Amino acid sequence: MLQLENVYQAAFALKNIIRNTELIHAPKINPEVDLYIKPENLQVTGSFKVRGAAYKISRLTDEEKSKGVIACSAGNHAQGVALAAARNGIKSIICLPDGAPISKVEATRAYGAEIELVNGVYDDAYNYALKLKDEMGMTFIHPFDDDAVIAGQGTIALEILEENPDVEAIVVPIGGGGLISGVAYAVKALRPEVKVYGVQAAGAPSMVKSVGEGEILTLDSVKTIADGIAVKQPGNTTFEICSKYVDDIVTVTDDETATAILTLMEKQKLVAEGAGAVSVAAVMFDKVPVKGKNTVCIVSGGNIDVTILSRVIDRGLLKSGRLCKLAIELTDKPGQLRDLSATIANYGANVVSVNYEHAGKGTDVNSCIISMELETKNKAHIQEVKNGLTENGFKLL
Amino acid sequence: MLQLENVYQAAFALKNIIRNTELIHAPKINPEVDLYIKPENLQVTGSFKVRGAAYKISRLTDEEKSKGVIACSAGNHAQGVALAAARNGIKSIICLPDGAPISKVEATRAYGAEIELVNGVYDDAYNYALKLKDEMGMTFIHPFDDDAVIAGQGTIALEILEENPDVEAIVVPIGGGGLISGVAYAVKALRPEVKVYGVQAAGAPSMVKSVGEGEILTLDSVKTIADGIAVKQPGNTTFEICSKYVDDIVTVTDDETATAILTLMEKQKLVAEGAGAVSVAAVMFDKVPVKGKNTVCIVSGGNIDVTILSRVIDRGLLKSGRLCKLAIELTDKPGQLRDLSATIANYGANVVSVNYEHAGKGTDVNSCIISMELETKNKAHIQEVKNGLTENGFKLL
Repeated sequence: MLQLENVYQAAFALKNIIRNTELIHAPKINPEVDLYIKPENLQVTGSFKVRGAAYKISRLTDEEKSKGVIACSAGNHAQGVALAAARNGIKSIICLPDGAPISKVEATRAYGAEIELVNGVYDDAYNYALKLKDEMGMTFIHPFDDDAVIAGQGTIALEILEENPDVEAIVVPIGGGGLISGVAYAVKALRPEVKVYGVQAAGAPSMVKSVGEGEILTLDSVKTIADGIAVKQPGNTTFEICSKYVDDIVTVTDDETATAILTLMEKQKLVAEGAGAVSVAAVMFDKVPVKGKNTVCIVSGGNIDVTILSRVIDRGLLKSGRLCKLAIELTDKPGQLRDLSATIANYGANVVSVNYEHAGKGTDVNSCIISMELETKNKAHIQEVKNGLTENGFKLL
Repeated sequence: MLQLENVYQAAFALKNIIRNTELIHAPKINPEVDLYIKPENLQVTGSFKVRGAAYKISRLTDEEKSKGVIACSAGNHAQGVALAAARNGIKSIICLPDGAPISKVEATRAYGAEIELVNGVYDDAYNYALKLKDEMGMTFIHPFDDDAVIAGQGTIALEILEENPDVEAIVVPIGGGGLISGVAYAVKALRPEVKVYGVQAAGAPSMVKSVGEGEILTLDSVKTIADGIAVKQPGNTTFEICSKYVDDIVTVTDDETATAILTLMEKQKLVAEGAGAVSVAAVMFDKVPVKGKNTVCIVSGGNIDVTILSRVIDRGLLKSGRLCKLAIELTDKPGQLRDLSATIANYGANVVSVNYEHAGKGTDVNSCIISMELETKNKAHIQEVKNGLTENGFKLL
């Protein structure tokens, strides 16, 4: 049974393993909110998960420690367990489906874990982990539905209350619910008037639906860029704590999350993963009632693949009018491309890429189509460029 | 004349304006170096520049304060002056060439400065600023060649020595030399055995050349992605301090800087601008003798345009084999694209974009060329995919 003293014990157990990630004032995210970021993306292993894993491990008996720990995860939990085990000098085995991204496998191995790649999908790796646990007597570390893990995550709340005693609301991402359970439990024990809001991805609303219905529901499928919180079913303990202590749970769309990721990069110089940015998205898009309030958003992690980050940036640039794709029909005669380039340059846009194609259905036999990507200033600037092209006789498709 | 007491005074003057950016342990950047990042990209305004500006402003007389301050900059210095002036309740005018990026102009205005867009280039804006200064009696705040500004930047050294007393070397970006002058002066006064290394962009080596020659040189031109340190000529004071106190100055290429930017994002979840990342590049690419040493890299700022960031990521992905561009000649008959897609999928690569073109010089009249962008795991994986395509009868161009 979770007790406040476990959270305080966890804080001591973690002292030589984690960083106390200092709050960063972020008043530009939403001008109506006095916002602070709790940057757990800057935590060792790039996410808060090491807190719960390290406290759980610190609680094992000597005999349990001598046999080691097992986890099943392709993500932040795996790295947290691997590092926490290594720091405690005990063995860890992480089971992963064999299709797991090489970069995550290597990162986990680098923290000192033994890796078992299991043929199949997540469930196969999970079953294999349970089998190993039984055969070898190792302790299985659940990613969220465990009192010690929850207590470890709760240390974040102690740091927030200590550093920002004026806090009025804390906004927390929810996947399985381990993080928010620890935070809500500690906050309501110490400062019950502080609001705790949870945020899920609209494509993986397992906790919000379960709490709404008053019973644990299992989603058929989940789909979101916030892969770290794409969880089909809440835990028993986390469902109970969320039902009791969390003030409200809201959802954000993938587009809102992508915008939050881009905003965190531009305004705060922080790389957040989708799961880490949903809290900020909720504040940006007014999903939680924190206007005028001293509010802390927990940015829970930063382990995002840079290829995805690159796509998020491009999408954000397109949405805000700083990147623009045009298709233009040209008469196929000399000088057209030169004239087009000159017109675009006159309007202050910068050509990033060009694609030039002859013929094609629906165009004159003498014409060709040019597709261009332009760097522009904003949506009004795009309109200026388009108007300029039309005025100069170019046909936009 | 700069005195150590000015640096301590500055630390007090800055208390309610800046953050004490806590060191972040970064042991994965270079496995042979015990590296810490001093993340001034997380400083208010996204760079260290606010330190020098704020201390300089705090030293003005009441009469000077009542008349306000002027600066000329399109970058971090402008934002630092604007914020520092606003916090001290005094007026600031920032002169910029009218071609300055809208985003920077708006950011500076948002910090409370009055903006003067001057027709022409940087020198025109500078001359206009001097004219305003004379006409209106406002104080001109130099971006680096000023004792108070240097003392303000030196507060970073106090924070580093306080938080990491075991530090053996500090690596610092150099543009005009204000930051490293403050740091080296304070470090050598307090802990003379700690090494201070400077890093410039290979395309803007004004300080390294000047110190090497023993006199202030002016470069004809500068060209680097580290635009924040693209300075043609060191200051008089900064040249003198660097000559006296800095242990060595090295340079890094733009490719090395781009790799450092990407690494800081992936490993540390930090967005750095080019000028901010040169220190990390120097450690990554063994430009400074810090093997086995407790080393602090100052990451001086994070104000990088996301469109540039997007290009840096793509370039880094290409270089590390995680993005790959292929051109393939196909016979122009049904089913070819399907077969090609199937082959690529079999080898575990992910298609990002496709461009399909008929005809073209140097190919059979019956063939077409398909250009593809693929997500791959590494360079060996790219070779596997290429071999697989060749074995399956596809002609790579």
